[in-house]
Amino acid sequence: MSNLVGVPTVGMIGGGQLARMTHQAGIGLGVRFEVLAEGPDVSAAQVARYVTVGDYRDLRTLQDFAAGCDVVTFDHEHVPTEHLHRMVDAGVTVRPGPDALVYAQDKGAMRERLGALGVPCPRNRPVADVGDLDVAAKELGGWPLVLKTTRGGYDGKGVWVVDDAAAAEATGVFSAGIPVIAEERVDFARELSAIVARSPSGQAIAYPVVESVQRDGVCHEVIAPAPGLPEHLALQAQGIALQVAGELGVIGILAVELFETRDGRILVNELAMRPHNTGHWSIDGAVTSQFENHLRAVLDLPLGSPRPRAPWTVMVNILGGEYPDMHKGLLHCLARDPGLRVHLYGKEVRPGRKVGHVTAFGDDLDVVRERARHAAAYLTGEIDE
Amino acid sequence: MSNLVGVPTVGMIGGGQLARMTHQAGIGLGVRFEVLAEGPDVSAAQVARYVTVGDYRDLRTLQDFAAGCDVVTFDHEHVPTEHLHRMVDAGVTVRPGPDALVYAQDKGAMRERLGALGVPCPRNRPVADVGDLDVAAKELGGWPLVLKTTRGGYDGKGVWVVDDAAAAEATGVFSAGIPVIAEERVDFARELSAIVARSPSGQAIAYPVVESVQRDGVCHEVIAPAPGLPEHLALQAQGIALQVAGELGVIGILAVELFETRDGRILVNELAMRPHNTGHWSIDGAVTSQFENHLRAVLDLPLGSPRPRAPWTVMVNILGGEYPDMHKGLLHCLARDPGLRVHLYGKEVRPGRKVGHVTAFGDDLDVVRERARHAAAYLTGEIDE
Repeated sequence: MSNLVGVPTVGMIGGGQLARMTHQAGIGLGVRFEVLAEGPDVSAAQVARYVTVGDYRDLRTLQDFAAGCDVVTFDHEHVPTEHLHRMVDAGVTVRPGPDALVYAQDKGAMRERLGALGVPCPRNRPVADVGDLDVAAKELGGWPLVLKTTRGGYDGKGVWVVDDAAAAEATGVFSAGIPVIAEERVDFARELSAIVARSPSGQAIAYPVVESVQRDGVCHEVIAPAPGLPEHLALQAQGIALQVAGELGVIGILAVELFETRDGRILVNELAMRPHNTGHWSIDGAVTSQFENHLRAVLDLPLGSPRPRAPWTVMVNILGGEYPDMHKGLLHCLARDPGLRVHLYGKEVRPGRKVGHVTAFGDDLDVVRERARHAAAYLTGEIDE
Repeated sequence: MSNLVGVPTVGMIGGGQLARMTHQAGIGLGVRFEVLAEGPDVSAAQVARYVTVGDYRDLRTLQDFAAGCDVVTFDHEHVPTEHLHRMVDAGVTVRPGPDALVYAQDKGAMRERLGALGVPCPRNRPVADVGDLDVAAKELGGWPLVLKTTRGGYDGKGVWVVDDAAAAEATGVFSAGIPVIAEERVDFARELSAIVARSPSGQAIAYPVVESVQRDGVCHEVIAPAPGLPEHLALQAQGIALQVAGELGVIGILAVELFETRDGRILVNELAMRPHNTGHWSIDGAVTSQFENHLRAVLDLPLGSPRPRAPWTVMVNILGGEYPDMHKGLLHCLARDPGLRVHLYGKEVRPGRKVGHVTAFGDDLDVVRERARHAAAYLTGEIDE
């Protein structure tokens, strides 16, 4: 606890880049920020003062960490739901709470609940074993099917597109006895994301709906706002996110990943209850970033304006490539583009790993996108001119 | 040193709010940031990972601290100049270096040098003792005179306006044998500030010239850009700052505090070679903040755009008042103004102490200024509606 009057302590479980950027956003709010980190040198641990190294799967570790915090929140969704219930029972303020968070942790529970709420989703059903799949395929509109483990997947992991039962069996997921749901493969025009923040007092704000471009199942580029999105779809997407946040009792950031179908509908793909890669543009592109609004929400402080500060903001992820030295590339990128915003995560470069992102903003989408893409490609070593 | 490839280590001497905000700005650049702090819980030490507690007046402490850094820079100007020379002689990269920094440390040296460069300053001369004052008064245009200790003054400390020799003697500064300069009291219309950043390779950028409103010798409000400033004066002010930075070999931020006289001239009041209170608006109001550009400069990275992001940005300092609890007031201020930007420094509230600042930006100066003023007044307890 801080010895300054009135200063709250926020504990974040997980020390990745989301915790790193949340800490950065909280410095101005004057909060005391504690991290339960996977190791002494993970991304957030390099930049924050109060770091506890420990295993988020261990209840005792979680309880000891929470004892020093006014509120506990998350950098990821991997803390066991039953541990969170035990913490809540012991009086810890956990935001979002386990009753909400379970819908970001368990895709089966999420699909069932969203279905009950009438929220548009791809057709889906749980499948108990390979024998179920032909029935599932009939019900969901035929092969190919998308198989998803209900827990533990992220960034394309735990997700397979399979053409038939043999391919499904080859994933190994059924023989491992892991719970799986099957979904129709949606013929989408593009992916969108609607991010909202919601506080315990019920206040909520919605960021502009963005377009999210994936590469190999990993978010690669985000354009804010989504170009050419009809207003009714933007409003529907924001409405869905606000409805889901309210009905599920989410506190903090809720990111709703969406498909925009070729026939003009939107369908919910995934939920995340934490600052999200599709909201990183807001650090430089919005009046209040998603990281600051996450903190404000979990502290029940009034939420900040999500208004964009430029007509167009484009964020491109820096995915680890051939070159281990990010700093060398900075010389070129910063000299070429004095308006470029760079966010490095302090992570060792490994192929495909998210090690940072760049953001550009301005009046002309083509120019802004080219600036962000060039910088990201240069920093990863994809191009060298 | 970081074990990540290519990551430079920046050491900042002094752990106040300038170091705190520099650390915040450096997180995205991925630098390793080390602080030599006055105590374990000072402003910057609450939010940074690598904190050394030690006395900046002790050469050995400085040398040990510098041994782990690629470059050493400053949160304040109080490190003894001779220590800095010893560090440079020992191979430490000190930015700004002592040959430049001395002009921010010693007002006598500054006045002499600026005079030699032909930079417009108030008339001034060193005074050895009280007996010198009548001659000085004649030379400088008569009483009252402004007396300044050549070293150690800041925020109005070490500065007196005196009406006659008796009043000058009553300051006690002459009997203490402290070196003093006398200056004419300038009949100024307002105070301005011109901030530039300069890198070792000679690149420099200039922020828009701002108006700085003082209260009791302490910066209270900053308006960016300075309203109604004729373009030729704005260009002259930026030109002076760029000239001084170049001639003196400043690396990093140089803030030039200026008087705009009632007869339409500008005169240099003070120099600071570090991020400056009159540049705090740039965190939320410019594409690249003064803190990030200070880091880029001392690392010899290309400088970022100083372009403003809104027509008007107003920063108001939060000076400690009656209420020790800053966080209570946040509820009101953030609810009233979702676009308000708040920066608290984690400092215990004491009357008159700078404990934070607020920033507002927008299209209408009157509205923007009212928003920032209201929030600051509320947070300090000056108003409670």
